[in-house]
Amino acid sequence: MTTPSPIDTILNPGSVAILGASDDLAKWGGSMLALLKKFEFPGKIFPVNPRSPVVQSLPAFPSVTAIGQPVDVALLAVPHERAIEAFEDCARAGVKAILMVTSQFAESGEAGQKLQDTLVDIARRAGIRIIGPNCMGYFHSHANLCLLNAQALMRNPVLHKGSIALISQSGALAGAMLARAYDLGAGFSFCVSLGNQADLEVCDFLEYAISDPQTRVISLYIEGVKSPQRFIGLLRQARAAGKPVLLVKAGRTDSGKRAVQSHTASMAGAYQAFEAAVRYESAVVVDDFLELVMQAVAWTSLPPPTGRSIAVFSGSGGGGAVASDLVDEAGLETATLSPGTVQALAPLMPESCAHLPFDLGAVPASHRGTNAQWLQEVIVGMMADPGIGAGIFVMTTQPDMVGAARTVMAASQLCGKPVVFVNAASSCGSEATDVLRAAGMVRFESIREATRYLANRLAFEQRAGVPLLEAPAPAVPAVAAMASGLPVGLMSEYQTKQLFAAAGIPVTAGQVARSADEAASAARAIGFPVVMKLMSAQVSHKSDIGGVVLNVRDEAAVRQNFGALQAALAPVPGATFDGCLVQQMAQADAELLVGTHWDAQFGPMLMFGFGGTLVELQRDTALLPASASRPAIAEALAGLRLYPLLTGFRGREPADLERLVDLIHRMGQLAVQLGEQLAECEANPVMVRGNSIVVADARAVWKEKA
Amino acid sequence: MTTPSPIDTILNPGSVAILGASDDLAKWGGSMLALLKKFEFPGKIFPVNPRSPVVQSLPAFPSVTAIGQPVDVALLAVPHERAIEAFEDCARAGVKAILMVTSQFAESGEAGQKLQDTLVDIARRAGIRIIGPNCMGYFHSHANLCLLNAQALMRNPVLHKGSIALISQSGALAGAMLARAYDLGAGFSFCVSLGNQADLEVCDFLEYAISDPQTRVISLYIEGVKSPQRFIGLLRQARAAGKPVLLVKAGRTDSGKRAVQSHTASMAGAYQAFEAAVRYESAVVVDDFLELVMQAVAWTSLPPPTGRSIAVFSGSGGGGAVASDLVDEAGLETATLSPGTVQALAPLMPESCAHLPFDLGAVPASHRGTNAQWLQEVIVGMMADPGIGAGIFVMTTQPDMVGAARTVMAASQLCGKPVVFVNAASSCGSEATDVLRAAGMVRFESIREATRYLANRLAFEQRAGVPLLEAPAPAVPAVAAMASGLPVGLMSEYQTKQLFAAAGIPVTAGQVARSADEAASAARAIGFPVVMKLMSAQVSHKSDIGGVVLNVRDEAAVRQNFGALQAALAPVPGATFDGCLVQQMAQADAELLVGTHWDAQFGPMLMFGFGGTLVELQRDTALLPASASRPAIAEALAGLRLYPLLTGFRGREPADLERLVDLIHRMGQLAVQLGEQLAECEANPVMVRGNSIVVADARAVWKEKA
Repeated sequence: MTTPSPIDTILNPGSVAILGASDDLAKWGGSMLALLKKFEFPGKIFPVNPRSPVVQSLPAFPSVTAIGQPVDVALLAVPHERAIEAFEDCARAGVKAILMVTSQFAESGEAGQKLQDTLVDIARRAGIRIIGPNCMGYFHSHANLCLLNAQALMRNPVLHKGSIALISQSGALAGAMLARAYDLGAGFSFCVSLGNQADLEVCDFLEYAISDPQTRVISLYIEGVKSPQRFIGLLRQARAAGKPVLLVKAGRTDSGKRAVQSHTASMAGAYQAFEAAVRYESAVVVDDFLELVMQAVAWTSLPPPTGRSIAVFSGSGGGGAVASDLVDEAGLETATLSPGTVQALAPLMPESCAHLPFDLGAVPASHRGTNAQWLQEVIVGMMADPGIGAGIFVMTTQPDMVGAARTVMAASQLCGKPVVFVNAASSCGSEATDVLRAAGMVRFESIREATRYLANRLAFEQRAGVPLLEAPAPAVPAVAAMASGLPVGLMSEYQTKQLFAAAGIPVTAGQVARSADEAASAARAIGFPVVMKLMSAQVSHKSDIGGVVLNVRDEAAVRQNFGALQAALAPVPGATFDGCLVQQMAQADAELLVGTHWDAQFGPMLMFGFGGTLVELQRDTALLPASASRPAIAEALAGLRLYPLLTGFRGREPADLERLVDLIHRMGQLAVQLGEQLAECEANPVMVRGNSIVVADARAVWKEKA
Repeated sequence: MTTPSPIDTILNPGSVAILGASDDLAKWGGSMLALLKKFEFPGKIFPVNPRSPVVQSLPAFPSVTAIGQPVDVALLAVPHERAIEAFEDCARAGVKAILMVTSQFAESGEAGQKLQDTLVDIARRAGIRIIGPNCMGYFHSHANLCLLNAQALMRNPVLHKGSIALISQSGALAGAMLARAYDLGAGFSFCVSLGNQADLEVCDFLEYAISDPQTRVISLYIEGVKSPQRFIGLLRQARAAGKPVLLVKAGRTDSGKRAVQSHTASMAGAYQAFEAAVRYESAVVVDDFLELVMQAVAWTSLPPPTGRSIAVFSGSGGGGAVASDLVDEAGLETATLSPGTVQALAPLMPESCAHLPFDLGAVPASHRGTNAQWLQEVIVGMMADPGIGAGIFVMTTQPDMVGAARTVMAASQLCGKPVVFVNAASSCGSEATDVLRAAGMVRFESIREATRYLANRLAFEQRAGVPLLEAPAPAVPAVAAMASGLPVGLMSEYQTKQLFAAAGIPVTAGQVARSADEAASAARAIGFPVVMKLMSAQVSHKSDIGGVVLNVRDEAAVRQNFGALQAALAPVPGATFDGCLVQQMAQADAELLVGTHWDAQFGPMLMFGFGGTLVELQRDTALLPASASRPAIAEALAGLRLYPLLTGFRGREPADLERLVDLIHRMGQLAVQLGEQLAECEANPVMVRGNSIVVADARAVWKEKA
């Protein structure tokens, strides 16, 4: 028999002690105890209060050590000044885990950090795991265990059992998400607010959620990732287990980063790298916490769409029109009816109405019969169309909204396709939304959120099974050999290209020339026209100071330009002239940049895009983990705005895409092999014309071994 | 004394007749009469029912002609088969306006269109104005007049008096928007659903709203614009009157266009031109109808922001972090506190908490005193910071939410700056939102919508007073002279450039050469290097077939290329060789496209952007009305992604922006002068380097006079 994991013990404890238990429900020790009792926790409850033998009608203990029975979880609702003492008591009592809700620890500055470190120390020595501090607690609905101080739980009589796990760095946002879920009639399998994550962190609960049979969808609110590699590995496991991970990451922008740092002392990290890394593990990134709940509830209450074509229907022609626009704008398609479906619907509505979007309000009353029955036949008949992958029903204020809600649910069940309900009737639709709530069925209040959900879910389903990332390939010996001798610092174009060549990346032929004579002879050997480039260790953007001459056509011009390059360096203070590079002149229909950098959290990242020297302005780039597979690279490349330049746009020769993807893939593999020492490298431009694909310029930064 | 306008009579009638008045509230003639009574319409009410002398306790008339008193408005709730008869009765009775709610007219096909035309005919002869058919009616709250069949009105005891006019082509969406407004505690000055607009249309009510002293904000739901020029003129009047016009336009996408056509038989037109035209009249375009209500209510319940810096505060650190991200992403700035404000707040909170975003939940209880009083002092003290232009409060589930709602309203009033309330507590926040509702104060449920509102309002306020469009300039005689002789069809580069030259637009020097000898002598006259371009009436994209040779450096090359151009045409079936153009070779750091086209609804439009032949891929263009002013052009240019190419990016020579704006402005003026006959014209590329700005290639399409 295996010992249960700490999370298992925490979520399914046999006993809970409450230090600071109180009759006053305004205090944490009061409300938490009340919640435990209200939702009928089946394990033992030990109130601890030195001044009162009975708390909330339960016998209380003067101290945790006085309990004399095993304590799985101790909730510490004590002032932070008394935290050390309480921890020591728990250690003596053999408590297995502490839920520490108190704040004013690491998030409040240096003194708090020290105090927190002391607690961690005590706990570690005693083998106690900690949730918090500075958190709001957690609940596990399937264990009838509630230790989360949230208004929605205090207001509602039932702890809904659900299949969504909610793991949040913010307690207040967990509370807000919970309130929204209650309004939707949805529940969570478990929910945990993690606060400062002094010990247990997002990954611990994420790992549990992946293996938890009662959890089908995982939702996360994250401020900073403590162990990025573990996190990414768990996302991969979740994907393999078929469990979607939906997440909000705060700290996307500079303002957000500052905010999270002061909130949970989290370092937000580079958001772009985070997003690239998690998307390539198929996580669904949402940018608002309430939308996160909506999406999670939709995910659990609706089957997956069977295709991209969305049937829009509404009691309002205007509602159908607006929804059609929003479906298109979400990158989905609006469905049209097949002739067979039109025929099947003929007894139910006049031909003039039998087209999508359905304007149900426009159907003359004479056709409707009993409204609810008629509606169900129409919707089920329509959704049966094999071309339709999902439906969206926009309910405006209309007759029989309750019937409409029932019909939508029934239709979805009968056809096995999702019909997404949008309540655009506000509180006039409350009786209808009550029907949906009772069934735990999602309803959106915003058409845009509904279309975004469908787009997210389709993307997730389509990605299932596509290999996005690769296991590390064996190290390339030639690269390893070169790397071992590289000096730290900015690598010259020449060095970088040698490294690329070792990795099998095609670079322009070229020679270093220290004199005009050498340049002339190099040019003859390479063949005219050539490119000439200034070499100077101090200059990284040569072209900005006139250090690149293209299309040099004869020997006289080579000699003249050699002098000109030397002169171009004169205005740069302290720069030394190291000669020039004479290179093959590559032609291009498209110039790309392909680069890598080492992200402090997520390791090697691969970036590519159009624009050559204009790449910052073009903003037409893709960022991927460097271990991206060829298919993932090809897909990202095809998503770029200027991609048609590679596929024969206006008479251009189509590029050899396989070769280009191979070049990009080799760059990624190079970054994976060289690791942290290759801080960044850049092939820019990569000249592409037909099957001629070659790196014309390059630079890199080599760092000391950490 | 002036006679009242038809709209005035319709919105302020002395008497209303209801044809089809009924005791059955499920019928239109029943519910409408009930609403008239419920909201205590002070004028005369004439139920008309041939079978019953009393309807809903009011004496009824057997026919409208039997009333024997003046009837300002007649509501026709009669089947469409009886519409002609009812209209004729109304004509005989001297009715001034008919509200026709019945459907199955123009929107249902040809037969319906004919029937509708007949009604319009009868009405026109009798001087009767029509609202509808196929609409839901209207109300005018300040006249206690309700003729709108909407659930929100049936459910609620009060017809809120408000300052938002709502003019909608969709009745069901008007109903949905009304329901949302009721939930917010907000009211409309008047609301009208227009249906098929057989007679009175959006513009008629828009015109009224602009002069209506009880209307401060105008909101529109539009499917198609019947009279675009009048519409644009009215938007300009609204702007001059300081009344914002917020609108949703359905039919933005192909799917939406199809939908609106079948809904209200509206032609959606080209959305891009619509959007450009209305934005340049400062209309605020929103893309969902419920968000339209939110924005309109926010506009009336909040003062304008005093600056771009937004103070974010929340009971949740996570809420503050997410909101900070969303503020940044909306193009606004998150505020920081000035040292003076930090000092002023020192007695209220520890220094570690005194930074934005405020995490009010993190302030230790010891600092809070009486929570509501403390909160008000903190928020008012913070909002007083002169650097702060507006506040956003994200309310998660937290203690004393009612107090928080009151504080936010009070703070906004005390500081004269908007504090936008976001209820992220769902129904847990209902007591707090009740407080806001009672005050008619907006509360958002989505942080993103709140930030979008602030961004819209700031943009509106900043535009006030900036001249965006110009009155037509006097016609340029040289342009008029050239235009009079232009043949219909595709204009050659040479012709187009002559037209541009006549308009004062700089073009590359060039000559037509019919032989290699002529080409050589032209090149000598222009100066080497030159560009040579194939001339053929049948070829419009010369460069795609190799018909453009750049950088021709000597006479021998000129002769050789002349032959090559002739040969390049050989594969094009039916194309005749008209010689070649020999032109000055212009240098460019940036290549732009500048073009105009005639939009069927909004007239001459001006488009410009970066990219030369890649312009479709670059998607970096601006579309403006051709009468755009120089400042408007300069602003749009500066908003383009590649704009830095003109301002010295990476060592480039800064372009003479004034000259470039002048060129674009002249193109716009040219399109204005030539009107519909200049179907389209294009200068592409416009070569820009420093103060050398010149059109290198051009084409145009000249149409017959309409």
